[in-house]
Amino acid sequence: MAKNAILLLSGGLDSTTLTAMAQAQGFNICALTIDYGQRHNIEIEAARTVARTFDVARHVVLPIDLRAFGGSALTDNIPVPKGRTNDEIEGAIPITYVPARNTIFLSLALGWAETMDSGDLFIGVNARDYSGYPDCRGEFIQAYETMANLATQGAVEGRLPVKIHTPLIDMTKGEIIRAGTALGVDYGQTRSCYDPDDAGRACGECDSCQLRLKGFSEAGLADPTPYQDRN
Amino acid sequence: MAKNAILLLSGGLDSTTLTAMAQAQGFNICALTIDYGQRHNIEIEAARTVARTFDVARHVVLPIDLRAFGGSALTDNIPVPKGRTNDEIEGAIPITYVPARNTIFLSLALGWAETMDSGDLFIGVNARDYSGYPDCRGEFIQAYETMANLATQGAVEGRLPVKIHTPLIDMTKGEIIRAGTALGVDYGQTRSCYDPDDAGRACGECDSCQLRLKGFSEAGLADPTPYQDRN
Repeated sequence: MAKNAILLLSGGLDSTTLTAMAQAQGFNICALTIDYGQRHNIEIEAARTVARTFDVARHVVLPIDLRAFGGSALTDNIPVPKGRTNDEIEGAIPITYVPARNTIFLSLALGWAETMDSGDLFIGVNARDYSGYPDCRGEFIQAYETMANLATQGAVEGRLPVKIHTPLIDMTKGEIIRAGTALGVDYGQTRSCYDPDDAGRACGECDSCQLRLKGFSEAGLADPTPYQDRN
Repeated sequence: MAKNAILLLSGGLDSTTLTAMAQAQGFNICALTIDYGQRHNIEIEAARTVARTFDVARHVVLPIDLRAFGGSALTDNIPVPKGRTNDEIEGAIPITYVPARNTIFLSLALGWAETMDSGDLFIGVNARDYSGYPDCRGEFIQAYETMANLATQGAVEGRLPVKIHTPLIDMTKGEIIRAGTALGVDYGQTRSCYDPDDAGRACGECDSCQLRLKGFSEAGLADPTPYQDRN
């Protein structure tokens, strides 16, 4: 019987590719989408579409209002930075950083994993073409896994050792897009933009859009996403 | 100026004593109460009362519905075990265990800490008179602290190293109650019972009530909590 895995699905390019990879590895996917008051809420709808397309075993959209804490352009009324160069994007930790986001998301996934008799967690972190978030790095993931193996009943009893799967961590955006395309991912269903317009069209200028466009360019493929300036 | 600290406040005996201790150490307390769909919801009201009594700097009650995952007598419709002996309580991990609870709670505290320019987290875990939860042990806390120092912008930049304060971890319940009493804690404001009646009176028989009663007995003090059978 297929093993359950909890997979953090944002509805973006990375986590959708991750879903295709985990399914190709034979896991029974329990997709977890966190509705954390992000202003790019269109991601949630993209996640629902992706979950249906892959016919995942379960999809939970968990509301948790991180706006209670404030402190990020993704959840506060701080303007999303636009038109930054790649060096700027890859240099400093940006204002779009959500405090402890991956720590919080992995912890919620860990809680669900235990109730699903699973120790397998998938997260689409990427330490190569990324935005400088500390919680996307391999050393963070390793420390998280060590902690998680001391945290849960299943792990402590040796029944369910926790393994954090990060197959995208060393891939470029172009490599991720090529891998997903080979697995049949329809990137038209995914959303990356931090600041889409009311029609859901991407801005093309925020860090996330720029990394996405660079990835498609590297992969030599067309991005099926609708953009504000180009359609 | 006093340093901010994020303190996980359930409204129970341990976290209320913890609040008194952190305040005595001079911290500016930001109390975080998680409303996770627990059925002993009276705890939330106790937490509000305690927060007011200590005049904390901020108190956030964050709703997060862990019932979406299921798997615990505290959030599912599974009967709370009653009348267990101390050996039974201290032996196995009980059904009232909430999967990855402290991992989730500390992660939320970590997110808030970063927005409050704080690296100091207080949690009232206790590895002595406890219910066998793996995420109450010192080795879990140490691994969590290591992970947290790789997770946040402030820690990675060296500005806000994360320290998890667990002053109760090696104390017996009796010692905790004596320490809190010396600091002026009014234990009549705290609630411990997993299964109170509609009037908020404690059952006196669940694991949490039994540990509490044993603690007051050890401390040689009367428990001001209203109990169902005794009032």
